[in-house]
Amino acid sequence: MSSESGTRTEIVAVGRELLTGRTVDTNSAWIATRLGALGAWIERIVAVDDDPALVAREIRDARQRGASLVVTTGGLGPTFDDRTLAGVAAAIGVALVEHPAALAFVARRYAELAAAGAVDDGTLTVPRRKMAVLPDRAEPVDNPVGTAPGVLATDGDFTVLALPGVPAEMREVFENALPMVRPRLAAPAHVVEREVPTGCGDESVITLAAAHAMEVVPGVYLKSLPTEFAPGCDLRVRISARGTDRDEAEERTTRAAHELATELARLRRA
Amino acid sequence: MSSESGTRTEIVAVGRELLTGRTVDTNSAWIATRLGALGAWIERIVAVDDDPALVAREIRDARQRGASLVVTTGGLGPTFDDRTLAGVAAAIGVALVEHPAALAFVARRYAELAAAGAVDDGTLTVPRRKMAVLPDRAEPVDNPVGTAPGVLATDGDFTVLALPGVPAEMREVFENALPMVRPRLAAPAHVVEREVPTGCGDESVITLAAAHAMEVVPGVYLKSLPTEFAPGCDLRVRISARGTDRDEAEERTTRAAHELATELARLRRA
Repeated sequence: MSSESGTRTEIVAVGRELLTGRTVDTNSAWIATRLGALGAWIERIVAVDDDPALVAREIRDARQRGASLVVTTGGLGPTFDDRTLAGVAAAIGVALVEHPAALAFVARRYAELAAAGAVDDGTLTVPRRKMAVLPDRAEPVDNPVGTAPGVLATDGDFTVLALPGVPAEMREVFENALPMVRPRLAAPAHVVEREVPTGCGDESVITLAAAHAMEVVPGVYLKSLPTEFAPGCDLRVRISARGTDRDEAEERTTRAAHELATELARLRRA
Repeated sequence: MSSESGTRTEIVAVGRELLTGRTVDTNSAWIATRLGALGAWIERIVAVDDDPALVAREIRDARQRGASLVVTTGGLGPTFDDRTLAGVAAAIGVALVEHPAALAFVARRYAELAAAGAVDDGTLTVPRRKMAVLPDRAEPVDNPVGTAPGVLATDGDFTVLALPGVPAEMREVFENALPMVRPRLAAPAHVVEREVPTGCGDESVITLAAAHAMEVVPGVYLKSLPTEFAPGCDLRVRISARGTDRDEAEERTTRAAHELATELARLRRA
């Protein structure tokens, strides 16, 4: 992993519906795209069952492998199977405690929902209070869509951001957490992506030219975009270049495209 | 994990495009759905980079945790970054060797593609031969869509099924591998799923009734389907019941629905 790669990050998606295949995990790709643009380097995405021990294990393993940021999604709500925060607390070795600020948030949300007629009443019942029980010293993050706050928990240089699982809530909480997360991210690498046609339908040839371009141009990654074989098929290659500024990334992209085309022509003449 | 749960299985999706968020991992959900219906119990889905050491680690860890089946998807093609099989071989402690049957398959596919005008010629170049290099003693699985065979590798009671990453190829190879995989799967549990309305818009209440139903009816799992709050919102609960035959699963579903409704009525009167 080069120093250009960014903050080492893993994503832990929590929920049995992901493991039965009933729900496709679109959250992780969304988080990866947004965080990648902000300076994170996503090394691994894992989906596990709603079990605090499993969540804790994934977070601990990620940290042990060198991740400095773990983002979880799912398991923050009021239901019996929303147990992600117990896993987060165990992973960083703190207790779960009721947070006054989180309780105030939950109380306010249920008061709003009761006033709007969306729930029968706004009382702080046991399942509702449960959403204000966070890892000790964590910070709640505003959730303008649902009732469970997001959670930012830190332990030295290690950070866990726990997001809800409902996509609309996840996205809002992510954006609200950004001011807290950003200081913990590396300076974003500048990334330029370009797709180029190859005039060739055969990945087994294109790969040789792509490997050549990656060898001679630093900081670039080329990937042919496979499709079904067809006569006259013109496969495309996606060039991703990282650089310390945009000009460097652009220049690397252009050089890689040139090297790819030249080598491809040479191979097909050979 | 109850004895009704089935063959302990993990899925390893390989490819940087999953980690950058450019590609949403739809393969894993498809595999989970199909395999779940056939007797597997998916415990974990993980996405990692195109790196044999990372693939090997995930497979080894899965086995060590007690999985008897690991399904990989991605990284079987002719390109430099298709290195999943090196990871599979390392995980089960065998060498990578060129398999005559796999080579014959690759040769036949390229001859067909050349005859159809889809590739310039059908010669067995180095990247093409690479697709016939499998873990020692593994079995190639026919791929009628692409050029890389799927791979079934076994080590005692432990099985790795390596599928391509292009969804159309993945699905075809999966179906072709089934006759080989099925004898290694537990008898499928019969699963019945039913969604029931609750007449209630408040997950924090529904969860108490769902927990009650799970407590009194064996083999059932109830999950409220969260949505955004709205006045008059009627949240639904999905009941999944497993049983040794269909009647048992049906009967458990009906009992759980009854317990849910009764307890919900009681709570809302309270």
